[in-house]
Amino acid sequence: MMLSEFDLIARFFTRPPSDTKRIVLGVGDDCALLAPTPGMQLAISSDMLVEGRHFFPHADPQLLGHKCLAVNLSDLAAMGARPLGFTLALSLPEARAEWLAPFAAGMLTLADAHGCELIGGDTTKGALNICITIFGEVAPHRALQRDGARAGDDIWISGTLGDARLALAGYRNELALDTALLDLAGQRMHKPTPRVALGQALCGIAHAAIDISDGLVGDLGHILKRSKVGATLCADALPAGPILVQQSLEIRRRFALAGGDDYELCFTAPATQRDQVLAAANAASTAVTRVGSIDASPGLRLIDADGAALDLQLASFDHFSSP
Amino acid sequence: MMLSEFDLIARFFTRPPSDTKRIVLGVGDDCALLAPTPGMQLAISSDMLVEGRHFFPHADPQLLGHKCLAVNLSDLAAMGARPLGFTLALSLPEARAEWLAPFAAGMLTLADAHGCELIGGDTTKGALNICITIFGEVAPHRALQRDGARAGDDIWISGTLGDARLALAGYRNELALDTALLDLAGQRMHKPTPRVALGQALCGIAHAAIDISDGLVGDLGHILKRSKVGATLCADALPAGPILVQQSLEIRRRFALAGGDDYELCFTAPATQRDQVLAAANAASTAVTRVGSIDASPGLRLIDADGAALDLQLASFDHFSSP
Repeated sequence: MMLSEFDLIARFFTRPPSDTKRIVLGVGDDCALLAPTPGMQLAISSDMLVEGRHFFPHADPQLLGHKCLAVNLSDLAAMGARPLGFTLALSLPEARAEWLAPFAAGMLTLADAHGCELIGGDTTKGALNICITIFGEVAPHRALQRDGARAGDDIWISGTLGDARLALAGYRNELALDTALLDLAGQRMHKPTPRVALGQALCGIAHAAIDISDGLVGDLGHILKRSKVGATLCADALPAGPILVQQSLEIRRRFALAGGDDYELCFTAPATQRDQVLAAANAASTAVTRVGSIDASPGLRLIDADGAALDLQLASFDHFSSP
Repeated sequence: MMLSEFDLIARFFTRPPSDTKRIVLGVGDDCALLAPTPGMQLAISSDMLVEGRHFFPHADPQLLGHKCLAVNLSDLAAMGARPLGFTLALSLPEARAEWLAPFAAGMLTLADAHGCELIGGDTTKGALNICITIFGEVAPHRALQRDGARAGDDIWISGTLGDARLALAGYRNELALDTALLDLAGQRMHKPTPRVALGQALCGIAHAAIDISDGLVGDLGHILKRSKVGATLCADALPAGPILVQQSLEIRRRFALAGGDDYELCFTAPATQRDQVLAAANAASTAVTRVGSIDASPGLRLIDADGAALDLQLASFDHFSSP
């Protein structure tokens, strides 16, 4: 069934705001109106997902709806911000209810779980392209920025790494994985869990944070560059995902260090705050693992379980140099 | 010259915030941080522009940069909001400085003219697709919504209508226009002027407003529907653009009523406020024309200069039903 632009918005993307004090005006006018909590700062992030680049053609629309919002919530998590709302700009080849209904359901179920309301957007005809801009709030001077890491800080990782990259290797036939394992690893790729509660719990404890979307080495590199510090990372301390952990040491190291699509948090905190970090992680029901430390001297040093230097050639993902 | 994703952002889209009190953190972290003026509401809008749909392939990048931001500023204007900042998500086939430099220049020149800062975004490889989310602020209960029109209100239009549609007809060879006239009309299509100052000046005077992007009849229709009113519009009172005014009466009416791409404001205000409307327009250096009135009975009635009913078949633009 083909829908008009206005039918499409009315049918799948218009719901009365659940919090009309915060969302003064939702979908349907020239702008949405948001009333921020007085004194709070707004955290804002945009992510654009392109078919064939960020997701496979003919991807399951419900999982895709989840993932598009999840990667944006992950950016709020990495700032320690509380989600408020988001806009959705959607370019798609045709307006079919059979695709839009599960796409909206996947997206809005996750939105509801985080109290994050769809407040506006745009729809147009074109190649499938999904652009979300998300809004959260955070108290002044409490946001977890990339530039706050200090020499002596511990480096921590939430959850586990590398299973999403392992699934990609399976789909691409770079590695042979049996179907059941590939399905499990694929869950990590298709349905990431944004660490929203952990990010907020770490405000006032962590010095710096980033979410791991392009691979740990590259993303930690952004913290090091912005904070003007270096780091030592124990490759064998990295919490490999339950499927990755069954692979060879070489694959384990490579995919945990430079996999991408993990959407875990990498954060730094003073060594004096270890108990507080663990308490915050516990309060957020999210496992965290200490994997290295921040050094004053620039550069990233990788070591193995025995403390010996590792020389791995790893590349972070770049949208314009990667195939 | 091909650039990496991070080079591209650093070189063309990163500038120190000019107002660090308002923009706490700009491009380069997981989120931007914006400190809204205490007590003000945020007006938020997203527009996505797709090559071949909203603009011609191989469009002039400087004009394109201008237009992408202009259509978003026009949404703020239609709410009476003051521009604060915007995010840019950009999918493009290749990162060439020869395209990016003029694109950024066109966009940022207009941004600077309105004190509206680029605070974040995303870049990725893919078909050319430009998604901007814009933020403005407006005092509580002062925003110009679509649902505020009342029976007895005058209907007003800023500037002139139809020249952008005339240019499209020329480019498509639907009409023969000499080159000089086509160039002039094309300026209206390629370089629209968002009526930002007028929108703000109308707060507290106008009852309802919308910007005319899909054609006056369709866009006024949104006001009528949301306000649960009707209207009488004098087709021959519409301020036709300087090129359109030289065309036949039939073309003049059709393109002024349902042209699209005008980015003028259509607003309603009580008949008792005519002097205030004219004073606001004067303060904003923007011409306005009274073109009809709001009625209690539903529907839109078109009349000619003598007050006789006109029966024109007009369609508003729908992205999913139009070719």
